[in-house]
This record gives sequence, structure tokens and C-alpha cells, in this order.
Amino acid sequence: MNQKSLHGQKIAISGGGIGGAAAALALALRGAEVTLFERAKVFKEVGAGLQIGPHGWKMLDKWGVSQRITDLGFQPKDMIFRDAVDGSDLVTLTFDEEFENRYGGKYIVIHRSDLLTTLIEAARENGATLHNGIKVEDTFNEESGTGVELSLSTGDIFKADVFLAFDGVHSVQRAKMHGDKPVPSSYVAYRGTSSLVEDEEMKGLKSVIGYIGPHCHFIQYPLRGGNLLNQVAVFESKRYLDGLKIGNVPEDWGNNEELDSAYDHCTDFIQSRLPLMWRDKWWQMADLEAVDTWVNGRIILLGDAAHAPLQYLASGAVMAMEDAECVAQYAEDFVRAHGAVDWDRVLLEVETERVNRCRRVQNLGRFWGEIWHVDGAARLLRNELFRNAENNWYRYVDWLWGYDVTDRTYVQDPSKGDLPEGLEDYRYALAGTG
Amino acid sequence: MNQKSLHGQKIAISGGGIGGAAAALALALRGAEVTLFERAKVFKEVGAGLQIGPHGWKMLDKWGVSQRITDLGFQPKDMIFRDAVDGSDLVTLTFDEEFENRYGGKYIVIHRSDLLTTLIEAARENGATLHNGIKVEDTFNEESGTGVELSLSTGDIFKADVFLAFDGVHSVQRAKMHGDKPVPSSYVAYRGTSSLVEDEEMKGLKSVIGYIGPHCHFIQYPLRGGNLLNQVAVFESKRYLDGLKIGNVPEDWGNNEELDSAYDHCTDFIQSRLPLMWRDKWWQMADLEAVDTWVNGRIILLGDAAHAPLQYLASGAVMAMEDAECVAQYAEDFVRAHGAVDWDRVLLEVETERVNRCRRVQNLGRFWGEIWHVDGAARLLRNELFRNAENNWYRYVDWLWGYDVTDRTYVQDPSKGDLPEGLEDYRYALAGTG
Repeated sequence: MNQKSLHGQKIAISGGGIGGAAAALALALRGAEVTLFERAKVFKEVGAGLQIGPHGWKMLDKWGVSQRITDLGFQPKDMIFRDAVDGSDLVTLTFDEEFENRYGGKYIVIHRSDLLTTLIEAARENGATLHNGIKVEDTFNEESGTGVELSLSTGDIFKADVFLAFDGVHSVQRAKMHGDKPVPSSYVAYRGTSSLVEDEEMKGLKSVIGYIGPHCHFIQYPLRGGNLLNQVAVFESKRYLDGLKIGNVPEDWGNNEELDSAYDHCTDFIQSRLPLMWRDKWWQMADLEAVDTWVNGRIILLGDAAHAPLQYLASGAVMAMEDAECVAQYAEDFVRAHGAVDWDRVLLEVETERVNRCRRVQNLGRFWGEIWHVDGAARLLRNELFRNAENNWYRYVDWLWGYDVTDRTYVQDPSKGDLPEGLEDYRYALAGTG
Repeated sequence: MNQKSLHGQKIAISGGGIGGAAAALALALRGAEVTLFERAKVFKEVGAGLQIGPHGWKMLDKWGVSQRITDLGFQPKDMIFRDAVDGSDLVTLTFDEEFENRYGGKYIVIHRSDLLTTLIEAARENGATLHNGIKVEDTFNEESGTGVELSLSTGDIFKADVFLAFDGVHSVQRAKMHGDKPVPSSYVAYRGTSSLVEDEEMKGLKSVIGYIGPHCHFIQYPLRGGNLLNQVAVFESKRYLDGLKIGNVPEDWGNNEELDSAYDHCTDFIQSRLPLMWRDKWWQMADLEAVDTWVNGRIILLGDAAHAPLQYLASGAVMAMEDAECVAQYAEDFVRAHGAVDWDRVLLEVETERVNRCRRVQNLGRFWGEIWHVDGAARLLRNELFRNAENNWYRYVDWLWGYDVTDRTYVQDPSKGDLPEGLEDYRYALAGTG
């Protein structure tokens, strides 16, 4: 990483979530003049735990914050999948030395707010300017084609060489460019953190555990050095599906009443854990349909605004971080090769790499959700397949966890973003109906 | 095998299909006085090809007819499963020396009528008396408990020490003992044989090929030394399912019109083979629910009358042959141990062994059908599981093909007839609704 390579480049970012903060950091580290606008009055993340695979960890390491992240989070020894109906073990993914060597990074779980705070602080320490309480109301490419103008909620016009729209799943920029809306998955997530050390049943937990079952799953892992237990309960909402049939989906689909009976077909253990979930907030899960175009002149969609996925591959935040590092690294590489940056060509290369990478994560994430939630004979096939993968699971995740933007995997072969042959025709029940 | 062990024992059999003929042969080989009654004017089998796994071949060998069967049939080199939608290979089960050593037998395919004729001839050669055109109209256990009386359609009463009811899926004896009816599976089978040597696409075929796909499958294998091609097209009948919904199933469910569109979602290759199917007859597939009781005094249900399965494990005929050998061998063993046969105890032992063995085949056969016909994500899981089993499939069929009645596997542990844990709750959509 060359700390001067982007000296003099003016980068504007909207959105002070994990992706925007990561971009501010990655670009500031290359010497760029970074200004970030977050419309909320404070930088904060809604939610609880977050998983960072080795594909994310190695960027945090490159950015100099991996130690802080590891200290604040928790390094699980493995990830255990179990059947939610009978509680039996299906497969254990061990995060050992072989794993770390294979993927060049560690597996970390961390509180979302701890990750965000770390990135924000590091970006500032490296010279990025981060504003709160300012909204980017509109953006215009300059007629010269050499820059972009931001119209801010303060009434000011802000000029930059390039604008990164990290403004989330309900992105203003996305609406302008594509006009589409998130696709509801019919699943809802409840979250909750509680004391792990005082939890007689769970204390000493060192694993990420995923119970997967018909129309539901349930996740547990430690946070904050093992002091906190993070739990996530995700299930299909009958209220949503029934509403869809009559063309009238109630706003409160996935409500508390649904939570209370969503695991009736699962082990008593899971049911006994539900009282620990937060009940005043739940997340109606949705993703964005993959699109081919993220770039308009000097404006580029990134993070959730570009490719909000379902959560099944636990890679939403890491993908945004990959975007951040991709922009910074490809710009740096361009400077190294040509002496100066040509943002039009850099953005094009970023788009090719990232559109295809993210298309794969988005679509396989949907499929992954399907196979977690199958019932009947399909559940037994899934269980047998998972059990047989005990010593053979690397090949299913190499593409995900072994990824590095510097390899330009998808620039070299964009078709790697296509679904593997045979997966085109699986049923994603609700795609396109949202 | 002791050719005198059952000397003097009078055995009556109803049903001159494969099971009855096999029983006549197996018992005649032990010196029993066997009389078989078949109500049809000739011995004949309806249908075309039939598969005999090593569990069947080793009995044919014991009975001295394996060479004749191998000459009349065909010994495939392997069994290949393919996906019916895209035609891709899933798994190949190679019938090599390792296979034959493991299971103590060969894999043979043969025309049903060739197998039946061989068994009938061998039974007669060994002294069994086989009657055509005589129906066993009713049966009575003698009050002494030491024999059974058959009331024949000729008006005669026939007395025997024991009566084996091999009278098929629509068994008179089954109706008397249980009163249940076959359970329709909603699937229908078309069959057809044609010249293999003149078939440009298929000539030289040495494999059993099974294309498995959503709601259908399609089987091909050679018969009669490779001169004949046997094809079986099996698919789910919408007419049946729609009829079931309105409580009025039309008699002709699975008709020719349904055949012509049943493979529209499959490879062109399969569709191009359909004109070779016989169109004037089709089989509405059904099985019997597993029951615990086959014995009433000196009367025992056997073969399809006791345990008609769905066809997915290709073991219906072999199961009937296992029944035949089981009765003969257990009676012989009893004589060896005690000096004389006690039929009450022999039948009880046969019942324990065979009820549990057949329960397993029946229930796993239904499950096997389910996994052949899955769609969507489940199909992709199934395909992956099958592909991964390429060098690892023995463990799924050891219980089926490695079976030998002399091991008394299920006498020693009847619970081996239970579905493996986790399989109790798969969905067999139509069980119990027929």
C-alpha cells in the first residue's frame, strides 16, 4: 500500500455505515482527501453481532485495525451447523491454522457498533473528514466529465473528483439510477444480546452455532471477549405470505406473536432461548436484485446501495469493505501503472470486478437460505450432504472466503459471477414479487 | 441345502408368479411335497424387464438356475444415474469384481417372463406339482391346529401342512387378514421393449441407466443378451392429483395424453425415446402399507400379498424370492436342530425376519422415490449428494444388497426394520389416502 498514491484526489462519500467508513479509511490510507457525509446526527449501527470471515479480516489487517477488532470481538474456534428439529450435529467448520493459512485471515465475530467505531476512528486518525447531520440531497456529474457536485442539506455545493454512494439499502442514489425496491424474503430476524458469563446453559461458548430447520434458523455466538451472547432468530412470516396472497401485507409482519410460535417444530432448547430475544424491534429481511450497472460518470453505488444481500453467507459488511478496498487499491494500481489516476477507467474496473463478485454472493445467498430452510425429504438430503462434508467443506466456501480484490478474479472472468450450472432453476419463491 | 430335510411335508401355494414359483422350487429342493395353484390358465408375467440385485442372484445360484438366468438375461456392467433435466451424470454404481465379492452375487436384468419360466420349469424338474386354472377360493386352519384346508374352484378340498399365499397385491388372503387396499402413489409407469441392435442411439448399451427428475424418471437397460432394449417411463399423474382434490379420481389417470407431456421439462433425449413406449397399457403404481402380521395359524402371506413395494429399490421380485428361501431354509434349519419341523414356530420366525426386512424396503422405497423426484433446491442438493457418493455409495445399499436370509438379521434385531433416525418425518404425500 502506497500512502501517497492518491495524494490530491478528492473523494466524497455518502453514508457513514461500515462500508462508507471502510472506504474513508482505505482511501485516506492512500493519501486521498476524503470527505464523508452521514445524515444521522451520530455514527451508529443498528443491530448486534456481525461475522467477519477471513476475506474481511485480511482487509482489516491491511488497514492496520485487525488487532483492535480482534480485541473488541471474539475469535470463535469453529462454526457448528445443527439440525433445528432434532438438534443433531450436521457439520463443523474448524477455524484452525489450516483454515487461516488457506484463506489468509482469521474468523472474527464482533458487535456491529464496535466495528463501526473502530473504522470511524481509524479513518479520522488517517486524515479523513467525517461529517454528521449532513445529507447528500442530490448529485450531478460536471459537464466536463472530470468531477461531481454534491448538493448538501446545508445548502452548500461540495465538489469532488469522485463520489461513492454508500447510502445503504434505501439509497437515494440507487433510486435515481435503478428505481427498484428491496425484495422481501418473507423472513424476519429477531436479535438479542445477553450476558454469556451468567448464562448457565451457554457459558464457555466458543463457537458460532447455527441451528437450521424448516422455515427457520437460530444463531448463537459470543461477543466482546466472550462476555456477551449474541442470538439471532430468523423465521418465515406466515403473516407476510398470507398477506401476499390477498395483496395486502400487514406492516407488522413477523410480529411478536409470530415469534412465539415460529419454533414450535424445533427442539425444546431453541424454544427455551426465545425469551432472550429483543421484542421491541425486528428486521424484515430483504435484499436487492443484482444489477449490472453501478456507475454513472463519477458516481458509483457501493455497499448495500449496490448489492444488499440476504444474510445467509454472513458477508454483507465484508462485501462493503471489499468495495472500499477495491476502489482504493485499483486507483493506487492505476497510478502505479500510469503515473496518474483516470477515475473513469478505475470505476469501470471496480464495477466489473464487484458487480460480478456481488452478484454471486447475492444469488448464492438466496440459495443458501433455501437449503437452510428446506423441509421433508429435502431436509434429509441436506443433512446427509452436510454430514458428508465434514472434512470436505472447503470447496464450497473457497470462492467466498478465499477472495481478494487484488486478484481481479471477476475482471479476468466476469462469468464467475454466474450461478454455477444447475443453480439457475432453483426456486426462489419470492424473487421479483416484492 | 439338504435335499431330504422337508421330506413328507405337504406345502400348498396359491399364486404362480415369481414368488410362488420360487417358493415351489426352494421347497421342492428340500424334498417337500409342493402343490401350487394358479388361477390363470397359463403361467405368465405381465410387464417387461426386471432387475435382480446380488441379493437375488445368490438365491438363484443356490437353487441351481443362475447360469440359465444369466444366459437369458443380461449382466450390466454398471448402473448410471443421470439428472433428467440436464442429462448430466450423477453417480455410477460399478458392478465389478469388488461389487460381486462384497455382496456375494452378480447384478442381472432379465425379462420377467424368462425368469418366471425358468423358475416354473426348475420347480417342476425338482418334483413340485403346479396347477393352472385353479383358484384357491378359501382357506381354513384345521381345528387341530396341525394343518390347513383349501377350498378350490374345482370344488375339491385340498389339505396341506402349511399354506403360502403368494397371491399378489390384490390377494384374497390379504383382504381376509387385513382388509386394506393398495395405496396409490400418484405415479404411473409405461413400459416398452424394442430392438437394441437396430437402435442407432442406444446400440452397445451395457448399463442400467436411470434418468431421475422432478416428478418423473426414465429407465433404460438391455435384455436378452443385449438384443432387446427395455425402457420404463414413470411420472406423476396430474389427473390423479387433481382428481384426488375433488374426491373423484378418473379411472384412466396416467393416460397417453399425460405421457406425451410428462417429460416436457426434461432433456430432448428422453422426449425422443417416448414413441418407443407401449401405449395400450400403463401401470398405476401403488404399494401396500407395511403390516406386522402375516401369519394366521398355518397360513402365511408372502410376496406382494404381504409387502408389495413401490418399485424404486428394484427389489419387489427379489423380496418374494427372499420369502421363498426364508420359509424353506428356516424349516430345514428347524429340522436340523430338532429332528422334525414345527411349522408354527417356523412361520413365526419367518414372519419376524421378513416383516421387518420388508417394512424397511417398503418405507425406504417410498423415500427413494421422493428423492428421485424432488424439484428446485432439493434437486440440487440431491444431485450434489449423489455426485459426492461416486466412490462412497456402498454404505447406502449394503443393507439391501448384502442381505441373506440365513443371517437372520431381523430376527436378531427387529428394530433394523425401523426407518433410520430422521427419516420418520419425511413427507410421503399420499400415504394412507388411497
